[in-house]
Amino acid sequence: MAEPRSAPGPNAVYAADACLPGAQRVMQRCDLLATYSAMPNAVSRGYLTAEHQQCNATVRDWMGEAGMHCWQDHAGNIWGRLPCDDPAAPTVIIGSHLDSVPNAGKYDGILGVVLAVEALGQLASDGHRLPFHVDLVGFGDEEGSRFGTTLMGSRAVAGRWNDDWLKLTDVDGITLESALLEFGCDTAAIGACDRSGEALHAYLEVHIEQGPLLEEKHQPLGVVTSIAGARRFVVNIRGRAGHAGTVPMDMRQDALVAGASAVSLVESTARHYEIVATVGALQCWPGAPNVIAGDCRLTIDIRSGRDQTRDLALAQLQEEIDAMVKARKMQVEWTETHNASAVSCASHLQRTMEDVLQDMGLTPVSLVSGAGHDAMSFDGITDIGMLFVRCAGGISHHPAESVEVGDVGAAGAALMNTLLAMARQYQQVGESGNG
Amino acid sequence: MAEPRSAPGPNAVYAADACLPGAQRVMQRCDLLATYSAMPNAVSRGYLTAEHQQCNATVRDWMGEAGMHCWQDHAGNIWGRLPCDDPAAPTVIIGSHLDSVPNAGKYDGILGVVLAVEALGQLASDGHRLPFHVDLVGFGDEEGSRFGTTLMGSRAVAGRWNDDWLKLTDVDGITLESALLEFGCDTAAIGACDRSGEALHAYLEVHIEQGPLLEEKHQPLGVVTSIAGARRFVVNIRGRAGHAGTVPMDMRQDALVAGASAVSLVESTARHYEIVATVGALQCWPGAPNVIAGDCRLTIDIRSGRDQTRDLALAQLQEEIDAMVKARKMQVEWTETHNASAVSCASHLQRTMEDVLQDMGLTPVSLVSGAGHDAMSFDGITDIGMLFVRCAGGISHHPAESVEVGDVGAAGAALMNTLLAMARQYQQVGESGNG
Repeated sequence: MAEPRSAPGPNAVYAADACLPGAQRVMQRCDLLATYSAMPNAVSRGYLTAEHQQCNATVRDWMGEAGMHCWQDHAGNIWGRLPCDDPAAPTVIIGSHLDSVPNAGKYDGILGVVLAVEALGQLASDGHRLPFHVDLVGFGDEEGSRFGTTLMGSRAVAGRWNDDWLKLTDVDGITLESALLEFGCDTAAIGACDRSGEALHAYLEVHIEQGPLLEEKHQPLGVVTSIAGARRFVVNIRGRAGHAGTVPMDMRQDALVAGASAVSLVESTARHYEIVATVGALQCWPGAPNVIAGDCRLTIDIRSGRDQTRDLALAQLQEEIDAMVKARKMQVEWTETHNASAVSCASHLQRTMEDVLQDMGLTPVSLVSGAGHDAMSFDGITDIGMLFVRCAGGISHHPAESVEVGDVGAAGAALMNTLLAMARQYQQVGESGNG
Repeated sequence: MAEPRSAPGPNAVYAADACLPGAQRVMQRCDLLATYSAMPNAVSRGYLTAEHQQCNATVRDWMGEAGMHCWQDHAGNIWGRLPCDDPAAPTVIIGSHLDSVPNAGKYDGILGVVLAVEALGQLASDGHRLPFHVDLVGFGDEEGSRFGTTLMGSRAVAGRWNDDWLKLTDVDGITLESALLEFGCDTAAIGACDRSGEALHAYLEVHIEQGPLLEEKHQPLGVVTSIAGARRFVVNIRGRAGHAGTVPMDMRQDALVAGASAVSLVESTARHYEIVATVGALQCWPGAPNVIAGDCRLTIDIRSGRDQTRDLALAQLQEEIDAMVKARKMQVEWTETHNASAVSCASHLQRTMEDVLQDMGLTPVSLVSGAGHDAMSFDGITDIGMLFVRCAGGISHHPAESVEVGDVGAAGAALMNTLLAMARQYQQVGESGNG
């Protein structure tokens, strides 16, 4: 990687500092959207709720003020278009989500939408004409916190909607179908949300990192190489309960001891393969201080930017856990509950973003996204580019979620610079194609 | 240890086989008492409940039929006396408990009382005159399942009652005081339960093993050397919650990984010191499959027949867990919730029981009781002797608790033989003292 330059490079049309006033506004807008919440001191905004309604209305206003043509689709996604002069031009979709988990922060998903409103407004008011349409979308559902199924908003747009979802219910027994109707959506017209058949040039997303790497590397922005594919399992270990005082150690079949050993194996295997793997939940029964546990259940979440590495690690892990449990004369049962493939970001978009960051005087950091994102829905449909923004302590899904205004300014500049660089590349290809 | 003899030795006045009819009756009586339960298909009999009332009334009838003088004391314990011809003779107390944990079996505690009724009745009807009074007691509370405090029945008898207990409440908010009054006890007269000032010759208890050792050694009976002293701790580990996908392994402070490592250390330390130690309960928070655990709480129960060994093991365990948590950059906090000293059985009573078993053609097995027993209350007050009866799979505190009728016959014979041997020894000492 080249040394940071003292003068901005050709891909740094906008400097981070120049975007500070816009970044201030983005912060204020995130603060405002945070008040559209079902909880008093944290963000809790489920798909198709009154809070979602408020949020879409406000974002629509901002998109309109930024000069965009706005609409809401029949999956409850809110859209704003910065049209190209050529109606036949392809489209760059920029998106992220406006829903949240319960007890959430202000920026996960939301920042990517609000920041893009600001960036696109700035480009428009500065008179930049892009050779593609830019459609900004705030997805209604990514987290899946209301109906249990994730990415419904972006999957509708990517043509991956499933009508079976209409029967999903929330905790109050309200079906997705009736919630959509209540929200003003025509459930028979959800198919019209599908943009996958159109001429799409790329899908871009700006998102907080939700991890500590950028902070560790003292960089405000990172370029995503891929979105990790996660597999999840529930592992049940059956031993034999017994009296904590009367059963000698060598006659025990302590399911918690086996479960604990599995937790350690998950950690050591992940370290060995340089991936991430986590036991997030573990329970044991009967769970009394003076009773040896007869049963233990734990979850395993294993992720990698490369499916092959993940599956190799998983195979070893399964073998070792099974052997350990067998050696302890207990039974183990694995149930797979989730299996998603890794999604790669387009290498030309990664290079463009790296060039932009470098020309802005930053050191490009490439990183795998361990978390899932709306971008995944567009795998195989269009090229994907993702930009990560540093967040304090890597904390997300919590009211303590925090970003620096300076980093937001850098992200806004980087998004504008990336669009301008993409425009130049598109035009060069067009010219050479015509030449 | 000597080879089993073909002819019964001098301490085998009663053979196991000859006690089979009595053992059949003991089994039937345990079946009957099991129906005095708050649960349909398992034993659940709390202190001072209607079931306890029924149980005491029935046991009192049986004691009366066996020729004993009966009474209920003001702690709700039921007593039967086989008096000595000499009113000034000391007393041997034989006891165990009639209460149970919820979802219990038929024999824990109960067998020791019912078996002793049968044995004392047999001795009386066979015309044996003992040189000491024998007082059989069915304690009302050992398990502590109703009011949370254990051994209240035997502690009242041992002069270790605490009037503060009167304020203890059950799940329905009923105080121990009002439960005692309801049961017909005079709470002002509980002090009169105290037998510790009298001339006591010994305390004897027969109890199911609640462990698998006798089964492993193919022996129906075992001689208890000591009752292990348990110490219990709650250990809280504080790490940092995080996203299971976005935090690299080497930047994690995963409280569950540390907790799991602690579980493994508990096991390996116990093995090294040849004691028992158990993590019976472990919880982690927030406990979601895709979130790194920020907090973990676990219990540690550590026991040994020798306090010194236990405390040595504990010191090493604490040091290793603390160092492991510190190396992982997390915090750990220990809270001691229980600390009981080991109680030794009198060596002369152990020898007497061993002689009895050997003369009965059995191989005496000496073992530490990992579980607590009423006998503990008499530590320092009189000599303690305990006999264990093999139970299937070492299972207790469960409806599957099971004993063989043949083993019960052996236990009845052993108890009678022990009392007769103690009588001979007492008279020899008396004669030599007079000579």
